[in-house]
Amino acid sequence: MGSLANRVRLQHEYETFLILADLHLLTTANSPDEIARVPQYVRDQVLDALAVGVDPARVTFYLQSAIGEVAELGTLLQSLVTVPRLQRIPSLKEMSRGGEMSYALLGYPVLQAADILCVKANAVPVGRDNHAHVEVTREIARRFNGLYGEVFPVPELVASDVPNLIGTDGQAKMSKSLDNAIYLSDTAEDVNRKVARMYTDPNRVRADVPGNVDGNPVFEYHRAFNDDRAQVADLERRYREGRVGDVEVKEALAAALNRFLDPVRERRACCTERSGYVDELITEGTERTRAVVRDVVLEVRRAMGLAGTYNRLRRNAARSAR
Amino acid sequence: MGSLANRVRLQHEYETFLILADLHLLTTANSPDEIARVPQYVRDQVLDALAVGVDPARVTFYLQSAIGEVAELGTLLQSLVTVPRLQRIPSLKEMSRGGEMSYALLGYPVLQAADILCVKANAVPVGRDNHAHVEVTREIARRFNGLYGEVFPVPELVASDVPNLIGTDGQAKMSKSLDNAIYLSDTAEDVNRKVARMYTDPNRVRADVPGNVDGNPVFEYHRAFNDDRAQVADLERRYREGRVGDVEVKEALAAALNRFLDPVRERRACCTERSGYVDELITEGTERTRAVVRDVVLEVRRAMGLAGTYNRLRRNAARSAR
Repeated sequence: MGSLANRVRLQHEYETFLILADLHLLTTANSPDEIARVPQYVRDQVLDALAVGVDPARVTFYLQSAIGEVAELGTLLQSLVTVPRLQRIPSLKEMSRGGEMSYALLGYPVLQAADILCVKANAVPVGRDNHAHVEVTREIARRFNGLYGEVFPVPELVASDVPNLIGTDGQAKMSKSLDNAIYLSDTAEDVNRKVARMYTDPNRVRADVPGNVDGNPVFEYHRAFNDDRAQVADLERRYREGRVGDVEVKEALAAALNRFLDPVRERRACCTERSGYVDELITEGTERTRAVVRDVVLEVRRAMGLAGTYNRLRRNAARSAR
Repeated sequence: MGSLANRVRLQHEYETFLILADLHLLTTANSPDEIARVPQYVRDQVLDALAVGVDPARVTFYLQSAIGEVAELGTLLQSLVTVPRLQRIPSLKEMSRGGEMSYALLGYPVLQAADILCVKANAVPVGRDNHAHVEVTREIARRFNGLYGEVFPVPELVASDVPNLIGTDGQAKMSKSLDNAIYLSDTAEDVNRKVARMYTDPNRVRADVPGNVDGNPVFEYHRAFNDDRAQVADLERRYREGRVGDVEVKEALAAALNRFLDPVRERRACCTERSGYVDELITEGTERTRAVVRDVVLEVRRAMGLAGTYNRLRRNAARSAR
């Protein structure tokens, strides 16, 4: 939500590319089964974006794996960052889940630099988790420009206004495997069910025990999504004083979330109705992006002197053939 | 010499591709000055190969950086090898020369796997230094085939018959910066000069002191290149007995090396005369290789399911547009 809200806001200020980063999936999930789920996964990402208000007239979607030049650029940037620098990024260790880290996972921020620099991005919307990665992009851009001449803008990080939400179980992170998240695609029934079993203050064994509203997911969600601010303040006060039951607080939250999600659901339904519409957006966007990326990679190869190498050989060969 | 002799032998048994690996230069030398030297560097490599008898009718030369799909394949293979596996390869640490290792350098064997697998190589001629790298290629090929189905032959390592030569200064390795090597392109005068200052047994302060012929570069080179085996045996015996001066041993070596190099020099001169001939071989070979690599990368993308993702989206988009 935070990430998408950021994109909705930025689409009015910037020409926007929205990457469907399926090559990044390979860093942690490279089995054929996992890859087979990519088409539905990227469609859902696009639908989520459209549902919250990303405007397809302003935003170009593209499928990362379909543009070979992105991977090529990744390879060309590899010499501009050191292994110890990448090893200091804590999120990569987390992602390797205690197993031996693959070379791909250590290079996640390098491929991400290619994703960003391949369209010469000026700004990148980032969540808290991504800050450290995009810092690597900025370093790579600066180092490239320093070595080979000014090619890349050093992209600005644009932080999200929406704070990162904790999971419905009170865990710091939402994740599919923990089933502790509410999705933009959830039905009203999904939302009611998830909110009903949401984690609250564990010390509050009865409704008349004063409770804590901070770090309490029910109230974190109220504060993030309930547009009835008076209701939120009233519930918080009564919860602290032990004068409200969990059921009332949760019912109010479920209602608020569904109020928020109803127009999102409507837009999603609209886009789903037109069969193939999303796939069309992805493939058209990918072709449009491919043309941009080809030009950028050519410019990169020229700046580095690699294009020059081959062109010189070719010119010379042609001259001798005459 | 060892590596090229191997290629000359193999060209009769295999369809051969000879890579001009300029992307690998980036792992340790990525400044514009260093990249600007690439055209002459790759021309010299081709000239060396032709001079020792590589037959351009049997061998396809290609410039690595000119085929973007090689770098793309490298990216697709990154998830099939772990960081600790790569860190255990001793030669990579040596190449980083005490500095922080770049991500590119750690991935040298991964890009090398792409170099080898992009033409579905069945065999790879290797020097001693390269054994450990090509083992990584074999592991990656096996892992790929296991995950996504049989696409790659697991390439055989073909070791060189010629043992690795020590430097003219007695150091274990020849290197340009130490100026301790004799080149296939050296003139007779270069050879005479280099042999004259060659390192010999340091304990042998006078011609009548018995000397050691093992690990002594003058005799290592005699054994590797002097076709007059009787002369080598005679010089070795007299050297051990303190009955020959360094000058005689060295003059015999210089003569032997020049005998060996004369036909090499002749072939080189032939190829150099035809202006643009080498550049033509490189560019034509690169175009021929590009076509092969494109097919292989497409097959890889199909096997992994990545081509399927995009094709499914495109088909569906096209259907809805009708």
